[in-house]
Amino acid sequence: MKDVLSGTAPALSGERKRITVMFGDLRDFTSMAETMGPEDVLRVLEAFFEAMVEVVQRNQGYIDKFMGDGLMVLFGALHDDPWQGEHAVKAAIEMQQKLRQVSEKLQSERFQPLRMGIGINSGLAVVGNIGSKSHFEFTALGNTVNVAARLESATKDHHVDILISEHTYDEVKPSFQVAKAGPIQVKGLTEPITAYSVEDTGAPAPSPTPE
Amino acid sequence: MKDVLSGTAPALSGERKRITVMFGDLRDFTSMAETMGPEDVLRVLEAFFEAMVEVVQRNQGYIDKFMGDGLMVLFGALHDDPWQGEHAVKAAIEMQQKLRQVSEKLQSERFQPLRMGIGINSGLAVVGNIGSKSHFEFTALGNTVNVAARLESATKDHHVDILISEHTYDEVKPSFQVAKAGPIQVKGLTEPITAYSVEDTGAPAPSPTPE
Repeated sequence: MKDVLSGTAPALSGERKRITVMFGDLRDFTSMAETMGPEDVLRVLEAFFEAMVEVVQRNQGYIDKFMGDGLMVLFGALHDDPWQGEHAVKAAIEMQQKLRQVSEKLQSERFQPLRMGIGINSGLAVVGNIGSKSHFEFTALGNTVNVAARLESATKDHHVDILISEHTYDEVKPSFQVAKAGPIQVKGLTEPITAYSVEDTGAPAPSPTPE
Repeated sequence: MKDVLSGTAPALSGERKRITVMFGDLRDFTSMAETMGPEDVLRVLEAFFEAMVEVVQRNQGYIDKFMGDGLMVLFGALHDDPWQGEHAVKAAIEMQQKLRQVSEKLQSERFQPLRMGIGINSGLAVVGNIGSKSHFEFTALGNTVNVAARLESATKDHHVDILISEHTYDEVKPSFQVAKAGPIQVKGLTEPITAYSVEDTGAPAPSPTPE
């Protein structure tokens, strides 16, 4: 997690490299949280984040940050990873599988079911320790990051759980079953981008590394 | 900053309280950064964040997180603050003043001018240590937070630098000069909200505490 790096490396270090970025966000949780006790909100989020962190780290992902009821994850940023696309999509499928388990457990304790949207994009970004001299964090910045965030937002309108950009798709297409989700107009980009919905076949997600 | 609290307090502690939330974001910086060297991107962001952190902390704000070229700030969250609205708006005005100085200095070093949008909202939110057992951060969650983020986004369309919600306005109206920015439709809310643009009179922002 980022605290390993905060404040220990020189503040001004960064490079432009190809990474895969994932945004995940609990759907409608903010509204749900308005009617819950604060301890319950934190309890549900803890169960959610606990489960997601485990899946992300097992798939070589780096948790960039939590944002309310969402998270930003980088693949291939901290260390080069030629399988960054596969790792990200495999993590996304497993995160959705895991969320169903967490949600079932929470429902048995009187909570409402949880759903999550995940957006994934690959491309060049500036990666490094970003912030002020007194506080900086290893993170990524660029349109590549923004598009991943927009794809996450678009999952709701497209009624799908995972959307990946064509850039990530080009990298992972032999490994996963996808369906074209049509061109998506992304704020800040002039041309709409082609996105694909990743289908969870129910089986364990294929592993990019031979076992 | 948040690292002071990360991992030191019990993970499950939170409450619902009235806070004032601010989002600030460099306008069009992501696109600008695509054409800059990575070291330059980090250098500009460092100058920006350095300046903003100083202003925020001097005005009793708590830096919740940096997000790429933006930041999220809480007032009245870590400690109760009856002047949270005034502190937030005063900080926003000073941040814009300070940004102009930073931008002039950077322009003299060949960089493009910087502009920033700031959105502010006040209301109830769940505040506490949110995250997993192994990594949690003091932050806030709720529609109050989301509305502040949406107002920041709306500054660009409304061609203004600072937008505050009517909830923050009701608290601070004797202290600042504002202009009605009209009803703004916020994603996730059924009713549009009334927002006000804060005018920077050029003079030092009024201080909420007698000196």
